[in-house]
Amino acid sequence: MDTDETQIRELLENWARAVREVDMPRILARHTEDIVMFDVPEPLQSNGMEAYRATWDLFFQYSKGGPNSFNIRDMRVTAGDRVAFVTAILTIYGSALRLSVGLRKEGGQWMVAHEHHSYPVKIDT
Amino acid sequence: MDTDETQIRELLENWARAVREVDMPRILARHTEDIVMFDVPEPLQSNGMEAYRATWDLFFQYSKGGPNSFNIRDMRVTAGDRVAFVTAILTIYGSALRLSVGLRKEGGQWMVAHEHHSYPVKIDT
Repeated sequence: MDTDETQIRELLENWARAVREVDMPRILARHTEDIVMFDVPEPLQSNGMEAYRATWDLFFQYSKGGPNSFNIRDMRVTAGDRVAFVTAILTIYGSALRLSVGLRKEGGQWMVAHEHHSYPVKIDT
Repeated sequence: MDTDETQIRELLENWARAVREVDMPRILARHTEDIVMFDVPEPLQSNGMEAYRATWDLFFQYSKGGPNSFNIRDMRVTAGDRVAFVTAILTIYGSALRLSVGLRKEGGQWMVAHEHHSYPVKIDT
């Protein structure tokens, strides 16, 4: 039984695998044309597919991929009829950051319309 | 006509107003017990209402509130039947950060089940 939650988990695990394999067409394959990206580095926001692709061009200046380069854990999926969101922890070479994802169902298929990636800021005590 | 989008916009504008007015009961009033918070400072994640409240206790060590202390712009709402997500830019005393929100409808009322707040990291060129 392929529930919405199962479909979304597979979509995101496939996307993370594509990042580990530095496979740009598969990284971009399930994203909407109007994707809103809040990435770790500047700019403040990246709107649309071309800007989203550019965030990965930047990422791969610092990453060569590989099995520990981009992994998802603690994935929690909240899915309605045609809108869903996901929270998860990403690990990049062992370093943990936060991932939020917003999805829309288009033509019966879940698509990523929003991502937000960030590291927490250390507090000086 | 009170559409889902209108209800969600009002919910978040009321929440931001409560932050500006340092009114904790109204800040927490429309959040789920299982809220997942990815805040600007550590920890990596805060799970549940008590941990969410603690992020605001920390925030108000640095903020006295006021009209420019917490404002939302560029709000984009994607709402389904019972799940929605929102992207927006927050300004805190003029400084811009990113806000992602996940919502669920419970008993006919939209409730915030996830927030992610972050500043982008400057890149050394």
